[in-house]
Amino acid sequence: MRQVVMHSPGNVQVEDREDPRIIEPTDAIIRLAATCICGSDLWPYRGAEPVDHQVMGHEYVGVVEQVGAQVRTVKVGDFVVGSFWASDNTCEICQAGYQAYCVHRVLMGTIGTQAELARIPLADGTLVATPGLPEPDLIPSLMAASDVLGTGWFAAVAAEAGPGKTVAVVGDGAVGLLGILAARQLGAERIIAFSRHADRQALAREFGATDLVEERGDEGVARVKELTGGLGAHSVIEAVGTQEAMMQAIHSTRAGGHVGFVGVAHDVAVPGDELFMAGVHLHGGPAPVRQYLPELVKLIWDRKINPGKVFDLTLPLDRAAEGYQAMDQRTATKVLLTV
Amino acid sequence: MRQVVMHSPGNVQVEDREDPRIIEPTDAIIRLAATCICGSDLWPYRGAEPVDHQVMGHEYVGVVEQVGAQVRTVKVGDFVVGSFWASDNTCEICQAGYQAYCVHRVLMGTIGTQAELARIPLADGTLVATPGLPEPDLIPSLMAASDVLGTGWFAAVAAEAGPGKTVAVVGDGAVGLLGILAARQLGAERIIAFSRHADRQALAREFGATDLVEERGDEGVARVKELTGGLGAHSVIEAVGTQEAMMQAIHSTRAGGHVGFVGVAHDVAVPGDELFMAGVHLHGGPAPVRQYLPELVKLIWDRKINPGKVFDLTLPLDRAAEGYQAMDQRTATKVLLTV
Repeated sequence: MRQVVMHSPGNVQVEDREDPRIIEPTDAIIRLAATCICGSDLWPYRGAEPVDHQVMGHEYVGVVEQVGAQVRTVKVGDFVVGSFWASDNTCEICQAGYQAYCVHRVLMGTIGTQAELARIPLADGTLVATPGLPEPDLIPSLMAASDVLGTGWFAAVAAEAGPGKTVAVVGDGAVGLLGILAARQLGAERIIAFSRHADRQALAREFGATDLVEERGDEGVARVKELTGGLGAHSVIEAVGTQEAMMQAIHSTRAGGHVGFVGVAHDVAVPGDELFMAGVHLHGGPAPVRQYLPELVKLIWDRKINPGKVFDLTLPLDRAAEGYQAMDQRTATKVLLTV
Repeated sequence: MRQVVMHSPGNVQVEDREDPRIIEPTDAIIRLAATCICGSDLWPYRGAEPVDHQVMGHEYVGVVEQVGAQVRTVKVGDFVVGSFWASDNTCEICQAGYQAYCVHRVLMGTIGTQAELARIPLADGTLVATPGLPEPDLIPSLMAASDVLGTGWFAAVAAEAGPGKTVAVVGDGAVGLLGILAARQLGAERIIAFSRHADRQALAREFGATDLVEERGDEGVARVKELTGGLGAHSVIEAVGTQEAMMQAIHSTRAGGHVGFVGVAHDVAVPGDELFMAGVHLHGGPAPVRQYLPELVKLIWDRKINPGKVFDLTLPLDRAAEGYQAMDQRTATKVLLTV
């Protein structure tokens, strides 16, 4: 099968690799319908994380081709969506809604789903089948549910977005944009998007942003304060992962408010005294996307939301390198790879 | 009147100062029945915070001696308890339960309540009157409500201590010990206290600790994991304010669990990647004690709780310097000053 491999920073190849096989009786093999490139794939691409001939990709939708002897809830032929953490969905941590920390979790990035086929561990716990084979135009949205939508949704939940709340969103990448969509679905009254790119601003508006702020850092914080009677937002989503973004999120939040952070933290250190004085709630990390998948699949299936709009470039798998380049150079927000 | 002044680190004096007067029509003047020394007073005492002829103290109970023209809810002769932040209790932040961040807040430490008399700004919002003059044996407990009990209570609430939960408590000072009492009152099933001092261990047990852990840092975390099936506690209270304590708290908490931190952070920086991977909720800061005062005063008045037990040394105000020394040298956990 064909599979994307990052040889070194900036060097992405598509290679012939052996087809995956069932290893554990709880595994399934899926044939990918689509996969995509994640903002977090740019960290090794840019040399900010070590990389050496690594298989890439952790987002996936596709059709079940084979199941292990103990798989019960998905069957050959099902169209399925899963999260970037495989999880048993039965342990105490999963039952509490934190499947990204399942005691048996497997990181899908170590398997690599930018490929024609993928082995999915803990298939019963990990995969959610759609009601039938989706119309082709639904595939980008289902693809988004696998990570960026689920992650944006978790960020909005962690930030306690809801009715009567003012939500600010730091980061206008796919996750930030879908955090806006999630905040709107959760009933937020007002959504302030930090963005200085016209195309992303337009999508932010379409997804539900009511206000746009182009300033960043302390100036961005000052604008949010102006817009909220000096108090700050009730809920702030951090979807970048840098020190500036994290502090912008904390300082944009009113005392007693909630920060939901999902940007993969790089060289971030939160000063204890600033956190102490801010009085905010801080919650985040790898999103337990599996928790939200049934609800998200239904919203997509019923055409209530269209998160697939974050994909602004579609390429065949064999042209993955171009996709990485486009996201690195910010000529694309999010790249869908068709398989 | 007599008032405690810290001239420089380690140098505490009791001096004659002018009696306070009503400045704003919302002020009250109280005659202190008791005051006390806070663990946070040790930071300047030890030179970890700058200090120069500073009036000291932010905890207080006493009798209202005079009220400003606009004061409505407390009257001369009332016995009152207040928090270390004066707050209007009417602004949007107060109404959300975050009185320590009231838009009109005044830090009582700038006024200094280790004194015979004190001016209380925003008296209607700040002070809670007891049902009558308290029996003398209730005064230490009412005194505790002013800060250490309210702070421990907030920490337990922030950590979401409650039925079915395992709560771990980092710090066996007065706030940590009262965090244990609060967790018990909130219905926690199991309470693990980190402590290596026999007298504090005994009080921890009396307040509701079910398990004691003497190890600290990574070893302490490992013990909590052992006691919780490898998962960590649901709820962890951090009541110290050092880097070791904060990381011990975060790492003792299971994914999806809650850390309530109230130790005044000194030289603490929370690494973003560790926080990201931990998946915990982090909430804390100066406690909105005012929110809990009516409930805490009632529990004390009805003799349901006895938080005054944290005071293990009582001295007259004029001997305040001995009290500072005893707390600094850890020969006392918490010092009550009678006025």
